[in-house]
Amino acid sequence: MLEHEIKIPASQAKCYPIEIGTDTLGELWPRIEADFNGYNKFVVTDENLVSAGHLGKLLGKSDVPAFVISPPGEISKNIDTAVSIIETMEKAYLGRDTLVVALGGGTVGDIAGFAAAVFKRGVPVIQIPTTTVAQADSSVGGKTGVDSSVSKNAFGAFWHPAAVYIDVATLTTLDDRQFKAGLVESVKHALIADSEYFDFLQNNLDAVLDRNSDVLEKITHFNCKIKGNVVEADPCEQNKRRILNYGHTIGHAVETASGFELLHGEAVAIGIIGAGMIEIELKLAPQERLERVRQILEKLDVPVKLPPNLAEKDLIDLIKHDKKAVNKWPRFVLLNDIGQVYCPDGQYAVDVAPELAEKVLKKL
Amino acid sequence: MLEHEIKIPASQAKCYPIEIGTDTLGELWPRIEADFNGYNKFVVTDENLVSAGHLGKLLGKSDVPAFVISPPGEISKNIDTAVSIIETMEKAYLGRDTLVVALGGGTVGDIAGFAAAVFKRGVPVIQIPTTTVAQADSSVGGKTGVDSSVSKNAFGAFWHPAAVYIDVATLTTLDDRQFKAGLVESVKHALIADSEYFDFLQNNLDAVLDRNSDVLEKITHFNCKIKGNVVEADPCEQNKRRILNYGHTIGHAVETASGFELLHGEAVAIGIIGAGMIEIELKLAPQERLERVRQILEKLDVPVKLPPNLAEKDLIDLIKHDKKAVNKWPRFVLLNDIGQVYCPDGQYAVDVAPELAEKVLKKL
Repeated sequence: MLEHEIKIPASQAKCYPIEIGTDTLGELWPRIEADFNGYNKFVVTDENLVSAGHLGKLLGKSDVPAFVISPPGEISKNIDTAVSIIETMEKAYLGRDTLVVALGGGTVGDIAGFAAAVFKRGVPVIQIPTTTVAQADSSVGGKTGVDSSVSKNAFGAFWHPAAVYIDVATLTTLDDRQFKAGLVESVKHALIADSEYFDFLQNNLDAVLDRNSDVLEKITHFNCKIKGNVVEADPCEQNKRRILNYGHTIGHAVETASGFELLHGEAVAIGIIGAGMIEIELKLAPQERLERVRQILEKLDVPVKLPPNLAEKDLIDLIKHDKKAVNKWPRFVLLNDIGQVYCPDGQYAVDVAPELAEKVLKKL
Repeated sequence: MLEHEIKIPASQAKCYPIEIGTDTLGELWPRIEADFNGYNKFVVTDENLVSAGHLGKLLGKSDVPAFVISPPGEISKNIDTAVSIIETMEKAYLGRDTLVVALGGGTVGDIAGFAAAVFKRGVPVIQIPTTTVAQADSSVGGKTGVDSSVSKNAFGAFWHPAAVYIDVATLTTLDDRQFKAGLVESVKHALIADSEYFDFLQNNLDAVLDRNSDVLEKITHFNCKIKGNVVEADPCEQNKRRILNYGHTIGHAVETASGFELLHGEAVAIGIIGAGMIEIELKLAPQERLERVRQILEKLDVPVKLPPNLAEKDLIDLIKHDKKAVNKWPRFVLLNDIGQVYCPDGQYAVDVAPELAEKVLKKL
């Protein structure tokens, strides 16, 4: 018997900037060109961004190859789209000296980020999120992924962006339903980390819904700080990062069961209410807290009840497929209070009996 | 304009063991179960390993889900196979607490390693290589990948194994052509790093070809040390790791152009001769050195000339698609001497004019 040991050295710490502004998209490309001199650029976006004029605004007269995801939305967030993107890059003779630029919402960022993570074993990606959900959440933190025919984000990688550029003016072209659904992630951030932010959201919700750019910049900054703190503490979701999944265990199942008729944020809203009901059952919360949460979600016009056509049995089966499942059942993130995650014995996600989950789903 | 910075902490250094023995396969599973207590196990292998009895020997009476790649070989090393593996894992309700065990040759290791790297954003993998090429090279170092319809390893990740277990007795069932082709990577290791190892190979080639287990263990140990040193110095192929691609720039193109009728090692043998001819053209080597290399490859019974049906034009086009291409043309790894890579200005891969490459391909 001969033995040998391979020692992989530690990777270096890494920083990336997030810039938040209004009407900054048109000035961005020359900076990207300068910062990534020597890289071939490849843009991934979707039809919505083309028709809203954002792709044209970003690129100006630059002649850059782009992959336009069609149709836009979750329906295209699958491995087939990632394969098409990579084959398009190959046919353009792009190599490892390629920078992927993701312009779009959460699905564009997830797909483009995953493609960048696996293209020729990994190339850098810049995220330019253009929706409330992507600006609040998905563009920061390096989670990428695409769905299989069985479940969400079956394929994925932790792949941190080289930079994130947020122009809140891109939100002005976002349709109302998308805009509001995306704000659910902001509510989630407030719930898990910052009761003052929750108060700010409650007090400024009219200005947010009016798409006031100062307020939008401010909540984006709140979101990036909260998300950033969690990601820095736990970049690969070993423990603390799980708190970002508040409302998502039921939410993901509801989203899939609806056949993606519900938007991600809409499904998470239902999941947040579900988590709140579990908290009441476990005596972690008084009823009033759930009412405060329900109120803000209702003002956002997102569903707070399960659609009648979803069977609890299907939901339970989908929850078993959750990628955080251990022994075929995931743990749940729950709250102690607004701004504070329930964390017994240092665990940010806790066991909830399937029977209790089923009981709550029946009432939801 | 608001700004925020995300600081991703350094990852920790990581070690993994390589164990080299003879007839060790049958004793391995209880150790894996003990070392990865709490993980669900999932085996990826191929038909050859089943019919040779190696899968049965590894698992004994354990009831473990397995994906058997069919047909075996490069032809199945594509994204579709990776997708099938992942969907099989999902349908078995496997989560992030899964250990992938790759039992097989280079293609099994590459596919299984890639599937592990992207399954739910990454699960650990153990490599149990069973061919000369996998034991010498591909099981160590963390490179994983699958092909697209356009080129080789278009999808991939650096994903280091948790452990590598090598049983040289598995080589006794390997067919002669595979066995010999895989030894080309051993020749490559000697060429780039260790002239004494080259002498050892030359002097012990009969015992190697007789599959003498002591000699096989010894060359495997040489290979793991050489490969390990390079990987430790440069885990993500920023510079030095490129030397492992000696012979591979032409080799990969030849392999693809042959429609995978040539085995990887056979194509690399042609690539090594091609690189040697470039060295002569650039006056880096006398003719005699190439003859010494040609002699050992001829004794291995691998091709040292381009098959007549391959067009140079196609090869040049394929070389442009090389994943290490920068500005649509890759750099070449060349030798100063046996055991020593040509490394001007600290660069381990150097520019070779396309015209010179074309000239060499015409003579090859």
